Amino acid sequence: MSQPMGRAVMVLAVALAFGAGCKPAGKASDSAGDKTAAELSDADLDAIRAVDSSFAVAANAGNADSIAGVYATNAALLPPNMPPQKGRAAIRAFWGGFFQAYTVRFEINSDVVEGRGDLAYNMGHYRFTAVPKAKANPGMADEGKFLEILKKQSDGSWKYVVDMYSSNLAPQH
Amino acid sequence: MSQPMGRAVMVLAVALAFGAGCKPAGKASDSAGDKTAAELSDADLDAIRAVDSSFAVAANAGNADSIAGVYATNAALLPPNMPPQKGRAAIRAFWGGFFQAYTVRFEINSDVVEGRGDLAYNMGHYRFTAVPKAKANPGMADEGKFLEILKKQSDGSWKYVVDMYSSNLAPQH
Repeated sequence: MSQPMGRAVMVLAVALAFGAGCKPAGKASDSAGDKTAAELSDADLDAIRAVDSSFAVAANAGNADSIAGVYATNAALLPPNMPPQKGRAAIRAFWGGFFQAYTVRFEINSDVVEGRGDLAYNMGHYRFTAVPKAKANPGMADEGKFLEILKKQSDGSWKYVVDMYSSNLAPQH
Repeated sequence: MSQPMGRAVMVLAVALAFGAGCKPAGKASDSAGDKTAAELSDADLDAIRAVDSSFAVAANAGNADSIAGVYATNAALLPPNMPPQKGRAAIRAFWGGFFQAYTVRFEINSDVVEGRGDLAYNMGHYRFTAVPKAKANPGMADEGKFLEILKKQSDGSWKYVVDMYSSNLAPQH
């Protein structure tokens, strides 16, 4: 099942991509566990959803530097059909390549945000369209889901430490 | 980019699947955040990795009931190229369909386990092979990565509340 991954596949993988998003939506779900750690405040939950907003603003502006800034320095981006992209520089290159080829429009919604202390996850869904800058490339549209792990940094900001997504749609042939 | 998803695609999506695994590996990574919540004990970290072992044992035995038991009742399974599978019954059906068609062999390794209180994530990588029970089906092999969210239940056990995975390999055409 293995095959070398060419540039086209990279772009496709990025294209079937997204990152994170926009509209505050879900609320923390209940858990039956024993609570030995503080649940997050509304301010923290809002701050976590705001990271998605920052992502979407940066992506829709095609700004790779701003995108990189919402990830922790040692973050991992886990795109479908390619190996994990580890570290902020690799993640910046991943999104930067996408923005060079396409003008993108992300619409991202959080379904569940939940955390304890300085650690949280955000699960949600996205849609995006990508209009090629070179006429030879086909345009794209996708919808899918994401799962992010975030950590509160020493400056009080929340950043992605893991960002994973995949399409809901059947592979295109 | 949308197209109706047939049975074959379902099986392929499941096939490009896995779930979680086997060998204890990584240790919690450092974070620079302000720690307002207790980090996990070694016993909890081991228990979380053991959920992956239970998954692999159940999968390699083709036991859908046992697989379902490692997920919380309201868990979500997020497979590539299909919508989220929500709830234990849907997740059982997903894996059960796969086990009906294939004898599978999972090898799963945790790279990072980290949590606070009753909430944790587990990130790692997997390989699997699937041998078809019907000769007409092709065999499969895959390797990829996973990201799981786990919660400690009221009985003290850890279970998946979110399970997401995707292949590292280029799509097959």
